[in-house]
Amino acid sequence: MKRVLLTIEYDGTDFHGWQYQPDLLTVQGVIENALYKLFSKKVTVIGSSRTDAGVHAHGFCCHLDCDDNIPDVAFLRGVNSLIPPTVAVKECKTVANDFHARYDAKGKTYIYHIYNSNEKDAFKSRYAWHIERQLNIDKMNEFCQMLVGTHDFAAFCSSGSQVETTVRTISECFVKKQGSDVTLTVTADGFLYNMVRIIVGTAVAVSDGRVLLENIPAILQTGDREGAGMTAPPNGLFLEKVLY
Amino acid sequence: MKRVLLTIEYDGTDFHGWQYQPDLLTVQGVIENALYKLFSKKVTVIGSSRTDAGVHAHGFCCHLDCDDNIPDVAFLRGVNSLIPPTVAVKECKTVANDFHARYDAKGKTYIYHIYNSNEKDAFKSRYAWHIERQLNIDKMNEFCQMLVGTHDFAAFCSSGSQVETTVRTISECFVKKQGSDVTLTVTADGFLYNMVRIIVGTAVAVSDGRVLLENIPAILQTGDREGAGMTAPPNGLFLEKVLY
Repeated sequence: MKRVLLTIEYDGTDFHGWQYQPDLLTVQGVIENALYKLFSKKVTVIGSSRTDAGVHAHGFCCHLDCDDNIPDVAFLRGVNSLIPPTVAVKECKTVANDFHARYDAKGKTYIYHIYNSNEKDAFKSRYAWHIERQLNIDKMNEFCQMLVGTHDFAAFCSSGSQVETTVRTISECFVKKQGSDVTLTVTADGFLYNMVRIIVGTAVAVSDGRVLLENIPAILQTGDREGAGMTAPPNGLFLEKVLY
Repeated sequence: MKRVLLTIEYDGTDFHGWQYQPDLLTVQGVIENALYKLFSKKVTVIGSSRTDAGVHAHGFCCHLDCDDNIPDVAFLRGVNSLIPPTVAVKECKTVANDFHARYDAKGKTYIYHIYNSNEKDAFKSRYAWHIERQLNIDKMNEFCQMLVGTHDFAAFCSSGSQVETTVRTISECFVKKQGSDVTLTVTADGFLYNMVRIIVGTAVAVSDGRVLLENIPAILQTGDREGAGMTAPPNGLFLEKVLY
C-alpha cells in the first residue's frame, strides 16, 4: 500500500459540495465511484476540508491509500477518465504513509470573484457574484487589512458548525480590481463555516456604507454575527490552494 | 407598436437550444416567459435561426413587437431581470416595422472552440471540445480554405432537415491556435443543419489523417455525408454574430 495526495480542480456548479452525501452529486462521491470502478472495492478519500454546494476549486487536496504498484501518472489518467468533465485530477503524488490531507494542512488560500459591471454577462454567472453598483476597492482593502492577524472570527461564522475555537490567523487578505473582475484573496491557517463568504459580504457592505469601518474592531471583539454583512453567494468562491 | 431587435448572449449548457419546446428549458422559452410577466400577454419572439442543445451564443438575434412607449434601455433591463443569469440581453434597438430577424439575416459567424491539451481542465468542459492529441493546424487550414466559396454542402449536413437547396457560400473559414485554445471561425450566408459541427469534425479528421485533403473536392461534389468527419460535440460551438 502507498498513500497518494491528489490535487483536484472542479467546477462546483452542479455539485452539492465536496463531502459525500447519499443520492446527491458530490465531488467526493464521483471520485470514490471512479475508484470503485478501478479497484472493485470501496476506497475512502479524505479531503482537506468540505466545500459548500456551488463552490469551485482549483487546488482542492485529498488523500487515499492504494496499491503501490500503480504509477501515479497512470492513477491520475485512470481516475480522470472515470469522473465527469467538470472535475479534473491535476496532480497525483505519493506521500508518507502518515500524511493526512486535513490534519497536515497548514492553511488555505481562497479567491472570491465579483463581476462588477452594470452589464449582464451570461458566461460569468456560474463563476462570479454579479454586483452592478461600482465597488469602493480602497474601503474594501481597509476592511481586509483589519482582519489580518490572529482574531476571534465568531462574527464571521455561520451557525451550525461545531468548532473548539473560533480564533483563526489570517496571513493575507486583499482586494484587487482588473477591469470588471474584482477579487478578494484570503489566506489563513484555517476557516470557519462560511467565513470567506461572510468576509466578502461584509467587504461589500463596507463598500456600500451599510457596515462602517470604525465598527469592525467591535464586531470582531463581540463576535456579533449580526454586525457583519451577508453571506456572499457560493458561485464566486474558489478554493485556490491548500498549504502543507 | 414598434419592432425591437434584441442581441442575446447565452451559456447553452443547460438549454435545449433556442427554439421553444413545451416542458423543456429553451432560450426562446425563458424570454417569452419574461415578456409574459412584463406585458401580461403572450408575445412571440422570432429568432435569427435555431441553435442546438448545448450550443452557446455571444450574438444571437431575435425580434419582437412591443408597445412603442417603452424605452429600449428599460426594455433591456426589464427582460434581463426576469431571465436566468445564463442568458443576457446585450442590446435592444428599435428597427423598421418590416424587419425580420431570420429573413433579413445576410449571414452568420460561428466560432468553434477546441481545448487542445493532454491535461484535463474542469472549467473548459462546458465551452470547448477537449482533444488530447496535438492538432495539425496547417492541415486544418488547408481544409478550411477548400470550403471557402459557393459549394453544395450536402456532405456537411445532418439528415432530418428540409431545405430547398444545400448550396451555401462561405466567405471565411480558418483555424487559429493560441496556446491550448484552437478555434475554427466560419462565416457564411447561411448554414445547414449541424454544418459547422460537421466542418469541425472533418477538420479534426483531416488533422488526424482519417480524411484526406485530396478527397475533399470529391466529397463536396458527391455530397457524401459518410465521406466527411463526425459531428463535433455542441458545447464548443458559439454563434458569434448575425450579419444584417
